[in-house]
Amino acid sequence: MRTFIVHAHHEPTSFNAAMTGTAVHALRAAGHAVRVSDLYAMNFDPVSDRRNFLTVRDPLRLKQQDEESYADAHDGFVPELAAEMDKLAWCDALIFQFPLWWLGMPAILKGWVDRVFAVGRTYGGGRYYDKGVFAGKRAMCAVTVGGGSAAYSDAGLYGPMQAVLHPIHHGILAFVGFTVVEPYVVHAPARMDALQRAACLDGYAQRVLGLANAPVQPVVATDDFAQMVLTPAARARRGLAASG
Amino acid sequence: MRTFIVHAHHEPTSFNAAMTGTAVHALRAAGHAVRVSDLYAMNFDPVSDRRNFLTVRDPLRLKQQDEESYADAHDGFVPELAAEMDKLAWCDALIFQFPLWWLGMPAILKGWVDRVFAVGRTYGGGRYYDKGVFAGKRAMCAVTVGGGSAAYSDAGLYGPMQAVLHPIHHGILAFVGFTVVEPYVVHAPARMDALQRAACLDGYAQRVLGLANAPVQPVVATDDFAQMVLTPAARARRGLAASG
Repeated sequence: MRTFIVHAHHEPTSFNAAMTGTAVHALRAAGHAVRVSDLYAMNFDPVSDRRNFLTVRDPLRLKQQDEESYADAHDGFVPELAAEMDKLAWCDALIFQFPLWWLGMPAILKGWVDRVFAVGRTYGGGRYYDKGVFAGKRAMCAVTVGGGSAAYSDAGLYGPMQAVLHPIHHGILAFVGFTVVEPYVVHAPARMDALQRAACLDGYAQRVLGLANAPVQPVVATDDFAQMVLTPAARARRGLAASG
Repeated sequence: MRTFIVHAHHEPTSFNAAMTGTAVHALRAAGHAVRVSDLYAMNFDPVSDRRNFLTVRDPLRLKQQDEESYADAHDGFVPELAAEMDKLAWCDALIFQFPLWWLGMPAILKGWVDRVFAVGRTYGGGRYYDKGVFAGKRAMCAVTVGGGSAAYSDAGLYGPMQAVLHPIHHGILAFVGFTVVEPYVVHAPARMDALQRAACLDGYAQRVLGLANAPVQPVVATDDFAQMVLTPAARARRGLAASG
């Protein structure tokens, strides 16, 4: 198994760093290949615009997706993005390791997606969800959260973690074809004692070693949709009401 | 009314730019004050770490919130962030103007939140949701989306826009106290003709002029929660089942 970890934390002694270190060690000890993009250490620039490209399709007006298609066809991505695209193409499993900031990814990771997930390379031409470029591969969010788990329950103040991660799971990972593994969520690591942290990291090692068999979210079957809306037949198969 | 628009698009001839221009013109023509942070034009850096601070609380380990608290108490934010914090404190209404990228904000805007919404300045000490720093003020997302509206319906491939925007509405805007106005969502502006675009921009002008009376989402009453979970009494008042 070839695992690619995109790591988005600025502090080398953070629990996020311990998680990534644990995953790398466990996977390599089991004979697997691992690559890590440590975005802060790389000083990765998350701002997406013409800086993504060596090529210029239209110098007068920046239409990002058109420039991406053109760069894809003309080997026109800047080296820092081409290198990330190569790691993405290389991997069997992708892990986003990040602290939850404002119910989302730190900007440095969101911008990694904005820039690296270019049309042509990761989607386009009807390639998405179950027909996606990365279909058959797995992806997972490994997330630390400052607050406890109750706040992220159905009746919690912030709402269920599933709803919080929906844009990332459904809009990014599943969209490009990855089968989305249930996230590994660590609540309030700063308030854990050493034994609890060790147990949590051990659980994480087991999760990454067992990623191929870990529980996953249903894959989106694009044939169930017509004009981007679930068909009546598909609704019936899922036991949903006919309209709504 | 004092409106602060945070604008996150790289192309000056984009529909996003037309929306911001329309809002500025309509508000000023009606005698209102407007400030705009055009993040790409400002070359805003969205990466959050020690670069946010002039001060250093702990040189050995970066705990972002601790450094934010310390900077708040010691006038220690870098000028580029202090200026944004001042605009935020100044406004009665906040608008995020952005294209939906990967079911979320462009990284340049997410990082503006990561860096500007510092503890001490925008939350902390029990100040959140209905007790938030910005309670009584209004905020809105003005969003362009490449796809049509059907894909963002309940049975749509991407799911309802409300679910897509949940982390932004609930995790950012409502969290710091803003009353969240229903978003102004523009689908597929690139496929509109000139008349449709003009009508859409006119509708947007009416929305920003009527922001004080526009439909809003329910304000989160923190007294309804105990230990971050909705209390049984509050569940009953809302007509929800007793558990779940």
